[in-house]
Amino acid sequence: MFTYRHEEDLIGCMNIPTNIYWGIHTERAKRNFDFGFAKVNMAIIFALAMVKKACTITNYELGFLEEKKAKAIITACDEIMEGKFSDQFPLDALQGGAGTSINMNLNEVIANRAIETLGGLKGNYNLVHPLHDVNLHQSTNDVFPTAIKIAAIFKLRELSEAIARLQGAFQKKEKEFAGIVKIGRTELQEAVPLTLGTEFAAFAEAIARDRWRTFKCEERLRVVNLGGTAIGTGLTAPKEYIFLVIEKLREITGLGLCRGENVPGETANADPFVEVSGILKAHASNLVKINNDLRLLNLFGEIMLPALQSGSSIMPGKINPVLCEAAIQIGLKVMANDFLITEATSRSTLQICEFLPILAHALLESLDLLIILNQKVVAYINNINANEEKCQEYFNKSLTLITAFLPLIGYKQAEALVKEFLNLKGVDLKEFLSQRLGENVVKDILSPYKLTALGYRQ
Amino acid sequence: MFTYRHEEDLIGCMNIPTNIYWGIHTERAKRNFDFGFAKVNMAIIFALAMVKKACTITNYELGFLEEKKAKAIITACDEIMEGKFSDQFPLDALQGGAGTSINMNLNEVIANRAIETLGGLKGNYNLVHPLHDVNLHQSTNDVFPTAIKIAAIFKLRELSEAIARLQGAFQKKEKEFAGIVKIGRTELQEAVPLTLGTEFAAFAEAIARDRWRTFKCEERLRVVNLGGTAIGTGLTAPKEYIFLVIEKLREITGLGLCRGENVPGETANADPFVEVSGILKAHASNLVKINNDLRLLNLFGEIMLPALQSGSSIMPGKINPVLCEAAIQIGLKVMANDFLITEATSRSTLQICEFLPILAHALLESLDLLIILNQKVVAYINNINANEEKCQEYFNKSLTLITAFLPLIGYKQAEALVKEFLNLKGVDLKEFLSQRLGENVVKDILSPYKLTALGYRQ
Amino acid sequence: MFTYRHEEDLIGCMNIPTNIYWGIHTERAKRNFDFGFAKVNMAIIFALAMVKKACTITNYELGFLEEKKAKAIITACDEIMEGKFSDQFPLDALQGGAGTSINMNLNEVIANRAIETLGGLKGNYNLVHPLHDVNLHQSTNDVFPTAIKIAAIFKLRELSEAIARLQGAFQKKEKEFAGIVKIGRTELQEAVPLTLGTEFAAFAEAIARDRWRTFKCEERLRVVNLGGTAIGTGLTAPKEYIFLVIEKLREITGLGLCRGENVPGETANADPFVEVSGILKAHASNLVKINNDLRLLNLFGEIMLPALQSGSSIMPGKINPVLCEAAIQIGLKVMANDFLITEATSRSTLQICEFLPILAHALLESLDLLIILNQKVVAYINNINANEEKCQEYFNKSLTLITAFLPLIGYKQAEALVKEFLNLKGVDLKEFLSQRLGENVVKDILSPYKLTALGYRQ
Amino acid sequence: MFTYRHEEDLIGCMNIPTNIYWGIHTERAKRNFDFGFAKVNMAIIFALAMVKKACTITNYELGFLEEKKAKAIITACDEIMEGKFSDQFPLDALQGGAGTSINMNLNEVIANRAIETLGGLKGNYNLVHPLHDVNLHQSTNDVFPTAIKIAAIFKLRELSEAIARLQGAFQKKEKEFAGIVKIGRTELQEAVPLTLGTEFAAFAEAIARDRWRTFKCEERLRVVNLGGTAIGTGLTAPKEYIFLVIEKLREITGLGLCRGENVPGETANADPFVEVSGILKAHASNLVKINNDLRLLNLFGEIMLPALQSGSSIMPGKINPVLCEAAIQIGLKVMANDFLITEATSRSTLQICEFLPILAHALLESLDLLIILNQKVVAYINNINANEEKCQEYFNKSLTLITAFLPLIGYKQAEALVKEFLNLKGVDLKEFLSQRLGENVVKDILSPYKLTALGYRQ
Repeated sequence: MFTYRHEEDLIGCMNIPTNIYWGIHTERAKRNFDFGFAKVNMAIIFALAMVKKACTITNYELGFLEEKKAKAIITACDEIMEGKFSDQFPLDALQGGAGTSINMNLNEVIANRAIETLGGLKGNYNLVHPLHDVNLHQSTNDVFPTAIKIAAIFKLRELSEAIARLQGAFQKKEKEFAGIVKIGRTELQEAVPLTLGTEFAAFAEAIARDRWRTFKCEERLRVVNLGGTAIGTGLTAPKEYIFLVIEKLREITGLGLCRGENVPGETANADPFVEVSGILKAHASNLVKINNDLRLLNLFGEIMLPALQSGSSIMPGKINPVLCEAAIQIGLKVMANDFLITEATSRSTLQICEFLPILAHALLESLDLLIILNQKVVAYINNINANEEKCQEYFNKSLTLITAFLPLIGYKQAEALVKEFLNLKGVDLKEFLSQRLGENVVKDILSPYKLTALGYRQ
Repeated sequence: MFTYRHEEDLIGCMNIPTNIYWGIHTERAKRNFDFGFAKVNMAIIFALAMVKKACTITNYELGFLEEKKAKAIITACDEIMEGKFSDQFPLDALQGGAGTSINMNLNEVIANRAIETLGGLKGNYNLVHPLHDVNLHQSTNDVFPTAIKIAAIFKLRELSEAIARLQGAFQKKEKEFAGIVKIGRTELQEAVPLTLGTEFAAFAEAIARDRWRTFKCEERLRVVNLGGTAIGTGLTAPKEYIFLVIEKLREITGLGLCRGENVPGETANADPFVEVSGILKAHASNLVKINNDLRLLNLFGEIMLPALQSGSSIMPGKINPVLCEAAIQIGLKVMANDFLITEATSRSTLQICEFLPILAHALLESLDLLIILNQKVVAYINNINANEEKCQEYFNKSLTLITAFLPLIGYKQAEALVKEFLNLKGVDLKEFLSQRLGENVVKDILSPYKLTALGYRQ
Repeated sequence: MFTYRHEEDLIGCMNIPTNIYWGIHTERAKRNFDFGFAKVNMAIIFALAMVKKACTITNYELGFLEEKKAKAIITACDEIMEGKFSDQFPLDALQGGAGTSINMNLNEVIANRAIETLGGLKGNYNLVHPLHDVNLHQSTNDVFPTAIKIAAIFKLRELSEAIARLQGAFQKKEKEFAGIVKIGRTELQEAVPLTLGTEFAAFAEAIARDRWRTFKCEERLRVVNLGGTAIGTGLTAPKEYIFLVIEKLREITGLGLCRGENVPGETANADPFVEVSGILKAHASNLVKINNDLRLLNLFGEIMLPALQSGSSIMPGKINPVLCEAAIQIGLKVMANDFLITEATSRSTLQICEFLPILAHALLESLDLLIILNQKVVAYINNINANEEKCQEYFNKSLTLITAFLPLIGYKQAEALVKEFLNLKGVDLKEFLSQRLGENVVKDILSPYKLTALGYRQ
Repeated sequence: MFTYRHEEDLIGCMNIPTNIYWGIHTERAKRNFDFGFAKVNMAIIFALAMVKKACTITNYELGFLEEKKAKAIITACDEIMEGKFSDQFPLDALQGGAGTSINMNLNEVIANRAIETLGGLKGNYNLVHPLHDVNLHQSTNDVFPTAIKIAAIFKLRELSEAIARLQGAFQKKEKEFAGIVKIGRTELQEAVPLTLGTEFAAFAEAIARDRWRTFKCEERLRVVNLGGTAIGTGLTAPKEYIFLVIEKLREITGLGLCRGENVPGETANADPFVEVSGILKAHASNLVKINNDLRLLNLFGEIMLPALQSGSSIMPGKINPVLCEAAIQIGLKVMANDFLITEATSRSTLQICEFLPILAHALLESLDLLIILNQKVVAYINNINANEEKCQEYFNKSLTLITAFLPLIGYKQAEALVKEFLNLKGVDLKEFLSQRLGENVVKDILSPYKLTALGYRQ
């Protein structure tokens, strides 16, 4: 049988099941926002627990909280950070209120857990109060954006590593395919020759830029508004607290965080998230482009993508480039999230961004998806094989490889040879040129080495 | 202790836990696409079960499936439609493969459940085969888009009803607020007068258009490509099956579905989804606009939005318009989904849309969110109160109410009166005009009746 | 030497060159919004002239304007509609003010032209006043949205015709290519066979839906708010005017326009434009998809796109699918415009949409681009040639054509044959099957007729 | 009477008017892409002329071009850079062909101008050839992206300066409004107090970040692929040319450009533009948010925006925040352009980005609009006035200002005082608190100094 405790707020009162750590504010939000959407990203919960811990240590050291209470709060924060109460955060990520409900969820769970460790019954907020103790000298408007930044930085680091491994995977293939000559394609038409290795090197290069981008992103998120309380002016918070809490937060997170020079400006404007999301979008755009390229090369038969699963319920033996397709869809999802982040920011008003909940969800979802995707794509790339024969086949037939001979024979002779060749049958262009210009010359000019070297030597 | 059965496909073989109904194809997909994203929308599963049931009845009636097998398959479909196996559909909505994995998930669960009811052991596909029996005369490329349309139509009907109720709620307030005169605002500046009732009538009008739109939408989804198999040509399916299966599907779903005139064209192009999503976006855009208006009117104090929860962890007594904020975010989410649907369609290639999985997810998510949101907003609107005093206060002070007197006194006298008034102090414009033009004249011209009537009578 | 006239407004006064028809309000707007962006779409100017003409006739017939003045105004409107003063509308399309400046530009040009025909000097507004005469009983907020709808309907009709012609072009190719058997492709992998004619029929089908869509669109734009003045309540306009003016507008435009039932609701919400733009986006999405398909088929060599221009400054003889590329970019531009239209609408506040200028520009730009693009693509499609040999080559080699034989030989024998075939060399699948199943059987099953018929006959 | 010259290409031949500098390739493109859209941005033309000049100097110094010819080409480039032939670039910005037509337009105009200065007749390409001389050792695929980057860097610098001035304008107001106490607002509800100066400081802070962002952007564009020719491998270009040309380009442009380490990777992927556009979008998002804030503050009457023009054709004296509205629309336009840039990049295939034309147009349009907008907004901000009385009025009445007293009197007493106050009438909260806590205490706590200081001192 369920038992209940009684809680009250300025709207009225509710019965809360005894076994539950959250309180009346969370419960109201749970009902107000039960859209059946995804829950709040746990990384936000963990980061908020870090912030609360930093605030509590600061409050304790400065004498604003007595030791027993402070220790109980800190322990509760530690437990949450270890994942012990992960079922106590039931809120929908799509919520109004600028994050207040998420903050109150933390405040209530921490308070009730602390009460419990002090030997009290959940709900006895005389022992530890969600607002007066756990939230002391804080406001949603400073702890919540700070927590989003912390969560995002941790994920960005993970992403940056995953991207580095993807770059490595492409570079491995660059070496492996260095000797395979093939025809390039621009505007979906055959263009001049290159090697398959060069093609993968180009993928690696784009991904290398992504790595640099995401690495540099972090510094945009390090500036936090913790201590600013409601609108960045620090109202109700003591000066020493404001100066000390950031140091504590640095220690707890291990991150190089600092307070903004103009905290009201940090609080009122969410533009750093737009900038960071724009950078994730640049990475997403590379992933979409590259994965589409991979399925094109696979369609041409120049490479063989790994077989991950049967492709058809009707055509026996059909294998589809399913991971490329998933990657493209995830890339598009990151773009959709970038739209949401930009909307949330540009539609916000005056002293805070009231649409931070959807912004936070979109940003962390993009990071989560990109991390896993990069990891999966690494394995996929590692198992790509080249079909050298097929590369040769296209190459030998391609008219545009004549371009490689321009420095040697000039434009006019080139045109004449092509015209002559077009009247022949049953021979491919490479053979024909070998007959006319000598086999060694052709071999030399079309060697992987010559095709890869930047520019020709006279 | 777990026991396993052994399954095989063209990639290799796997051990599948005995208690699980899905098979090797689903299991591979589960691992290939474990992005930690949302699961496939259950409405798709239910709709696919309907499709499979229609196909099986048709195959049975035409002699392609023996009775015992057919009945077992049909029973399994019915059980799934009742929600009995909802834990057997573990796939991530973000997946490659154009829906093949979702289709295989259904095929395998149905086959294994049918095997079970026939007294066999799961995995003994000699009794009922996922492909040769459950998927007989089908392809992912015809059953999956058909299922998306069925799922969407059911949700569209629910949405249309929810929108109708929202329209009703606004109309109730239209009547309730019919006598409250206030100042209108254009470009965030005071404009000419209207009644608060008229303001709510305008909301109702926009929502009425949404109701009509979503209602009309259905006909765009009724044309399905079932029977077209892989690319719409019906290859491998017998002619009589193709003609009968659509009738069976109409019976089972109760929807007025029909087969497209050009089934390859239906299969290759996902544009009807773009059109439908565009219409949901029009609705979303109204919701965003109206909810922002509501929070502006609430800020002005002309209306009082219902208090749903405490608004601040630091400012006692602050109540925020949290449902409006949630509604705006959901509206933006629907716009982001519209982006995804358009991308999925316009990036698809040749004979099918390979990005249907994200398209389906986005479309059904938008529908789900809009249904719940409309329902929630109805209750919110019902509890809005007007602050007539505040409406009067702005109104009486507003310079622009002179516009209402133009037909009576002409532009020149109006300007002269305003100029005179601006030199006075301590009196509001309405009082001043009463002194000059007579109390009755002013009362009459500024009466709700006169302000609401379309145009003046000479 | 330039001479000037002196004009005054509530901000101050300015010198306006004597030869110029616009006045001080236009001149201010010209300077305020000189962003170097595109000018206001001329279709708006023409449509506004029609609206002004309808208002003036109504005002004259009801005795609100004397005959001489009314006739002079009407003549000026007619001249503008004939394109005579097209250099007198200098405003940037990107402007604040909800369209007031565009309306004032019309009012001033019409007034000054009317003054001129009455023998007066431009600027002598005692003869004809831009506001009291030309704008009589009007507000920007009713004439401007009405004009946008009129302009859009005319363009929609043109678009609908252009789309019909494109559908026709695809259908001509459907017949021309009816006998060419080829391999289909799904998920960028070879799938089951179809004819090239069927492939073009699928394009035609998508375009046929676009035609229907754009045709149906018109009814969404026929409901106008003319007569509603500032916020849809018709304040300052006489009742008989409001009822008559819509009839006059119907006569002048020849369009089946009607006044909305709830004019404040029509005035406050721009959602019909979002709906219409969403439909243009569906069309754009088809154009993007189809043009990408065309360049893929051209890359495979199955069709040859017309050569429009040399493709490379370095590779002799390279021809690129440049019109497909332009079409894709225009499709994307229409999507970007749909974004703008949705933003403009959903960000608008209270009694009107203050962002109508960018909305109008984006909507009409999309229509203009789509009209020209469809016309251009028609000619392009007409000149496409098929390469039957190449179609055959892919077809004969493709493993997936075995699927066509499943009804005849069953899944097991099909698999066995494929396995056997894979061990052979130097023979393609079609030849091999001819040897095993008989040449006539293979010919029959792979005939265009059989492949095109929906389903097989037992 | 018009006279013509005869030109030929691989498609056929055309008559070109004698007085025109462009040739057959440009003329074809003009007709192929006559969409009535905006012309190619002149900044691209100027930048391409710089690139051509650098290539020509290099070719001359290395002996690939004879002196007379080289000098004529260089002179022509210089003239174009001075704007002398700006009417000779007639192409629509929306074009297929990856920029080839723009490049050919330059090649032809330069060649014909050079021919002219050498005493020849336009079209006599034996004297100077558009491809073999002007385009020597180049490809559209290296010169065009390089030119986009050069054009963008020049504009970015201009933008950065304009942003700096906007920051300055906000900071001037920060000082001017430093003493004006007012109530803050979060979630469109009254929150805790701040000064109007602080509110403008927050705007300045966001804009300061924009300045930093756009400043840092440049380094992402400095890496160019000039010398890479068709696909980045430098095919047909001599090695010494590739190394020297970048030095020449640095000299001519005065920009710190360098060649990418992996030129095929630079050529194949347009992601740096996505990154840069994402940063412009972050700036746009700030402009949208801030301009919306300004019109809200103006609506509240706390500030008075400058009157730029009459606001209404019906309401005498109405002034609207038209520049804010224009700014919001431009911000949205930049977001729409960001969408286009991301699409162009992520939809490109294999060795180059075939959609560079729309990308270039969108990027430079965003930069142009943002430069002018920032300049205009500076003047607007400078003329903003505060309404201190109105600020006081809201402030004195606001319940939430009790929050400022929490450190002094604690939560309980605060609640008690508010309760007591709510039962009174005819007195505002500030007066009431003065009676209870002493006038000096209240004055001190609500002083601009205390409200602005970060945190309180015990």
